[in-house]
Order: sequence, then structure tokens, then C-alpha cells
Amino acid sequence: MTEDMLEEGTSRVLAPDFVPRKIGPMLSHAEVDGDFVQVTWRDGLAGRFHSCYLRENDVGSAIDPETREKTLDIADLPLEARIVAAEVSGTRLSLRFDDGAVTYHNGDWLRDIKAGHHLPHSDVPSRYAWDASDMPEPVSFDGPTVLSSDEALFDFLTATHRYGLARLRGLGSADGTVRKVAEKIGIVRSSSFGFLFDVENKPNPDSAAYTGQALSAHTDLPTRELQPGLQLLHCRDNSCPDGYSTMVDGFRIADEVRETDHAAFDALTSLNWIFTNRHPDFDYRFSAPVVALEKNCEVSEIRIANALRAEPDMPEARISEAYRSLRLFMTLALDPRFVCRYPFEPGDLVIFDNRRVLHGRDGFNPNDGYRRLQGCYVDRDDLFSRLRVLARNARACASTGNAAAAE
Amino acid sequence: MTEDMLEEGTSRVLAPDFVPRKIGPMLSHAEVDGDFVQVTWRDGLAGRFHSCYLRENDVGSAIDPETREKTLDIADLPLEARIVAAEVSGTRLSLRFDDGAVTYHNGDWLRDIKAGHHLPHSDVPSRYAWDASDMPEPVSFDGPTVLSSDEALFDFLTATHRYGLARLRGLGSADGTVRKVAEKIGIVRSSSFGFLFDVENKPNPDSAAYTGQALSAHTDLPTRELQPGLQLLHCRDNSCPDGYSTMVDGFRIADEVRETDHAAFDALTSLNWIFTNRHPDFDYRFSAPVVALEKNCEVSEIRIANALRAEPDMPEARISEAYRSLRLFMTLALDPRFVCRYPFEPGDLVIFDNRRVLHGRDGFNPNDGYRRLQGCYVDRDDLFSRLRVLARNARACASTGNAAAAE
Repeated sequence: MTEDMLEEGTSRVLAPDFVPRKIGPMLSHAEVDGDFVQVTWRDGLAGRFHSCYLRENDVGSAIDPETREKTLDIADLPLEARIVAAEVSGTRLSLRFDDGAVTYHNGDWLRDIKAGHHLPHSDVPSRYAWDASDMPEPVSFDGPTVLSSDEALFDFLTATHRYGLARLRGLGSADGTVRKVAEKIGIVRSSSFGFLFDVENKPNPDSAAYTGQALSAHTDLPTRELQPGLQLLHCRDNSCPDGYSTMVDGFRIADEVRETDHAAFDALTSLNWIFTNRHPDFDYRFSAPVVALEKNCEVSEIRIANALRAEPDMPEARISEAYRSLRLFMTLALDPRFVCRYPFEPGDLVIFDNRRVLHGRDGFNPNDGYRRLQGCYVDRDDLFSRLRVLARNARACASTGNAAAAE
Repeated sequence: MTEDMLEEGTSRVLAPDFVPRKIGPMLSHAEVDGDFVQVTWRDGLAGRFHSCYLRENDVGSAIDPETREKTLDIADLPLEARIVAAEVSGTRLSLRFDDGAVTYHNGDWLRDIKAGHHLPHSDVPSRYAWDASDMPEPVSFDGPTVLSSDEALFDFLTATHRYGLARLRGLGSADGTVRKVAEKIGIVRSSSFGFLFDVENKPNPDSAAYTGQALSAHTDLPTRELQPGLQLLHCRDNSCPDGYSTMVDGFRIADEVRETDHAAFDALTSLNWIFTNRHPDFDYRFSAPVVALEKNCEVSEIRIANALRAEPDMPEARISEAYRSLRLFMTLALDPRFVCRYPFEPGDLVIFDNRRVLHGRDGFNPNDGYRRLQGCYVDRDDLFSRLRVLARNARACASTGNAAAAE
């Protein structure tokens, strides 16, 4: 408990995120206000913190120094205890409670919370909903550079989230390349298609993906409770002249429907469809609307795949409207105004938010050449986690002036 | 299109689920009623089907015979076409539309839909919420038998879903046993803990699980958007006398709160907490309530882990109530009235619904003996999928009288 005596601007290891940072501004004063403590820093910033939250995060008694986890069970927390005094010293806040307890808190930790650095969406860029004129082809990055530089990886992943679509080029054709890229992000998510899946012509196909058929715009695995967040597809070989890839921003389509046809938007967001798969060894099913909304009514997810959509799971009286709204959505999703359509070239790898960007392809004749893709899935929260870790490591480097660590 | 001429009771392969079944009852008649067709079988059963649904599932033109997937894109579907005539013959329904189209439908497929066999929860048993008196120890099954018999596997998985907790015994101590059991269900879900994880004392632990500390009742990975549905834990070695395992049915606790303290139940289901992890390479975060409800207000999920719970993500005015309700929940979750507490013996494997049953353990002294567990995760919908596949295979065997295939 001597670290709060360090001078502002000096470096130390900050427990919560494992990276060294400079000590922030000193605390100026603290006032008790009912169940809250109002803390003010010398630069004028102020924040309010609830007494229970402070009590269960007491650095002196409630945090394990090794695992950084809270150790005091909430069942044992004296929630009724009132704060009777609050004092600051350097970057340390100390509190006295009416049951005699004294707790300590790091001012930099409080400041991070006040700034929202602990919120789920911190360090995650905002999204940009695009149409064909914005996105004639996927935003592209040099594959080998992204695989070797954290800075390039950060830019690539920022684009991946912002547009829901990005492309790496120059990756060659080696088996397992897609895994290398995926593991730069996080944990590969296996599915009934395997850990990695090879998209090529197959005998007895269990999906139209394994034929030369055109594939209409769709999301993968809508039959699962959680659709995979990111899909990565690496083009290992392609000498077929046809079979162009298509991508469409489902959030842009949802916006278009919201603006032009309120009844259709309501049907898309409130009426469930059942999605089912067809397989000898798996029988996944899920019931959900085509467009899912966040609490704040922003679009969070599209779930659509004509081939796997089964029965309407809704009152009879709404079925006609559900079909009308779905046809409107798909008609827009196939409209060239919105579709990014491009040849998929050997050595390219595309990554897209499978819960946002609908993917498809033109038909091709498998006898015209050899086409072979390899793909895998990673969940959305792995992307967010990686963006945050890259951002905090970059901040640590900037903060400590350790240029070598940035490489 | 000759199969509908087969006699009732004869066998054939039914496309949707890849298993041979007997032909069902013949159709009696069909009537058009606006956008719907009312179909009646000779045994008196009747069902109503929407014209759009029938049109897009025309066996003659819209279903790929190889992949069993729908091939007609909804963007191309003439939704305005009206049915002008409906006829039945054997188990075949045929419709004529006012745009000239004629469609065909298999009566057994329609009958399955009418019976709800395509719904997400068909073949999934109901849940039973238990307390300590119902569950002095986990319901147990012989491990080697479950690994070698589909019938025993079905019983084990039925108990797994019904109680959210079951145990296999006599599995020995081999590395990777937990994977064998998991892959009898479905796809292993990797996480930041690895594909399989070894729970034992570790230097520089990133979780209290890797120490001898007591672990309070919790769900694993509440920091992820989708918490793992099932956790499997195999006890490979344990010569420590302490460190008993504890399990509590979180759905039972939620019921208790709902019945006894409506305000607390409301706070638990409507106020979000942020859950975060602490790791040099991962920074997962998620904001959600402790108790999640289905649309029908049934409890669907518990998300709780004192060590990983960070800030209250709610209006200031609700924070005191959120703490009070959470303490009530945890106090009940630790009450011996509700807790199943038992020694974890070598060769045992427990499986539990990690989104329902909170797990924990008493503390132990790592110097008292050698304790080593191995675990992994599988998602809930993999369990549902396996239950359905096992059920349909059993039905196929019963239906065709093929006893050999049942083994």
C-alpha cells in the first residue's frame, strides 16, 4: 500500500490489466453523499461511487493480489454499513464505515471507471453501415504484415468491426493459413462443419456450399443459439472464372427497411422463425426473429438463411406479414445497390461479421477449374477482447516510452 | 413422386431426418380457407398450413433432393399467388395456384409439423428444479455403459437436462476421458482456458480454481456473451480429504426469490452487471442481468460469479436494490437447504448445465494429497441436438423393427 505515494507520471504495474502505466492525477478531496462517495481529482474531474461497490472492492481485504479476483463473497458483505468518513492521500482513497471497517481504493482505478474504460464497448470502434458505392470491394490489408505486426493487426481488426468485412491479401495457399489468422484474434469455434472446414465440391453434399450452386445471401449456422460472430474464408485455389463472392451489410438493409417500411421492420424484429438443419448426426434448431435489436433499439444481429429457415413460429394472423417483410429484406439484400461483389482470388482471406454481413456467391461450373476455400469461425467477443488487449498494450508502450515493446 | 402411393405402414426413407420410417395415415381431404389450407387425415386429425409456407416447400420444385435444403429464394417467391384448388391422394397433398403453379407436399411431413415434431423443444425433456432433499448427490450412471450404449447415453443426457446435473462413475483416470464423453454429445467448445482444462494447483494462477481456495457458487465464463451450456469435470485423482464439491440449482433459487421477494426478483431479472476477466492475453466483458428470462417469463439462465462481477451497469437509483437482491440470491445459493454437497471421487465425471447449476467447492490443503480434475465445455444446443438424434434413431429402430440397429 505504498504505491499511492508514487509521484504522478511515474510507472508501475497496475493490477487490473497487467500492464505498466503512469500514475494518474492526484486526488483532491472526497465527500460522502448518502450511499455514494463523490471523489474529485486535482484536475477537476469528479466521479460518484456506490458504497457497496467500494466495500466489495477494498484493495486491502477483498482482492486477491495474485489472481486479481474479488475474494469477499457478496453473501458476507455488510451492505447496510454506512460510510462515515472519506479521505484522500495522493492517489489513494480511504473510507471508514460505521461497522468499524476501513477500506482503501486506488484513484487511478476509480478514474478508469469514471472514464468508462471498464465498460463492455470501450476500445471497440463504432460501426459504419455501407452500401455498394462505399464498398466496391472489401477493405484490404497485406496478409503477411498483419500476421507479424500488432499495429497492422489492430488496424485490420478495427476495419473488421467497423465495416463487418475486411480482406487480407498475399497469404499463399497453405493448408491451415486460416487458423493462423483466427488465432491472432482468439479462440477458433468448432462446429458441426469441423474445426476448419474445406469448401469445395463434395460427393453427397450436406450443404449447397459443397456444390457449384449459387448461394443466396445468408448467415452461417442460424440454427445455433449463438451464430458464429466472425467467419474467415481463405481462398487456397480458384481457377474458375465464375463464382464471384457477394457480401451485403445486413445492418444497412435493416436500416433501409426501418426508414421505408415501419410495419415490415416491426415484423422482422418481433416475429420468430424456426431455423433447422438437415444432417444424419446433428439436429440443431433455433427460433428467433430475422433482425435482433439491442435494448437501445440498435440492430445487433441478422439471422437469415433461406435454405435453413423452416416454419413461422408466430400467431397465424401475422404469417402473411412475416413473409412480406422477409421478401422485402431479401430483395434489398440482393439489390446491386447494396451488394459488394468481387472475384475471390487465391491467397486472399476474407473475414466478416457473420451476424451482420450476409455472404453468398454466384454459381460456377466445377468443371471449369479448381476452387478450394478453407474457413473457420471465431466469436464476436474474441474480437472485442483482442481489440482491447492490443489497445492497452499500445497504451502501455506509449505510456512507458518503451518503443521496443511496441514491435 | 410415387412414394405417396405406398401403403400405410410400409417403410421408406423420409428425406427431412435421414431415417427410415413407416408411412403414416392417409389423407382424407383438404380445403382452401383464405391464405390457409386445412388438411384432414383419415384418422380425423386436421392441421392448417399457410399458402406461402407450402409454396416455398414444394417438393417438386423447391427442395434439393441431395442436401434437403430449400432452393427457391424467398425473393423469387410469388407471395401474392392464391391457392385455387387443393387435392389429396394417399399421403400426397397437391395444390394449384392462380398463377398456374402446381405444388406437391408429403402428408407425413405436414403431420409432423402439426404434431410439433419440428419445434425447437421437441424431444427435449422438461426440467425439474431441485433442492438438497431431492438431490443428496448427483444422479449417477455407469460411465463405461454410457460410452458404449446409445440407450444408456440417452438416459444420461435426459437426466443431464432434466436436473441440470448428472454423474458418471467408474471412468478411471486416463487423460482425455472428458473429451470422449463430450464428443458423445457434440462439439467441444474451446475457451481461453483451452480445449480441455486441467484443474490443479498452478504457479501464478489466473483463477482461484487453480489454488486450494474454496470456490463460492458460480457459473463459468459469465464474461462471455454465451456462457458455456454444459461443463464436464472428470476427477482423475483426488487424495485430499477436503474440497467437497457443491452444486446448487440456480433455477430453484430463482423460483424461491420469485415466490418470496418480488422486488428482488425484478431487480435480478432487469438490472445488468458487468462481468470482466483479468488476464494478460484476454479481456472479455459482458453486461447482463443475473437471471435471464424467456419470452414466456420462465427462467432460462443464471449468470453469477462473485470474483468476475465488476460494476453495476444500471441507473444509480437502483444500485442499492441490486446489491440487496444479489446478496439474497447468493445467501440462498449457499444455504444447505438447497446445496448438493458430495466428495469428488477418482473416476467420477460430473456434467452440469453451467447456465443453470452453480458449482463450487470447499477449500482444501493442496499439501494433504494430490487432486487433479480435467474439464471441458459443450454448448446447450449440442445437448438438444444429440437428444433429438438419439430419439429419432430409436424411433426409426422401433418403427422398422430393426433390433440390430438399436445397438
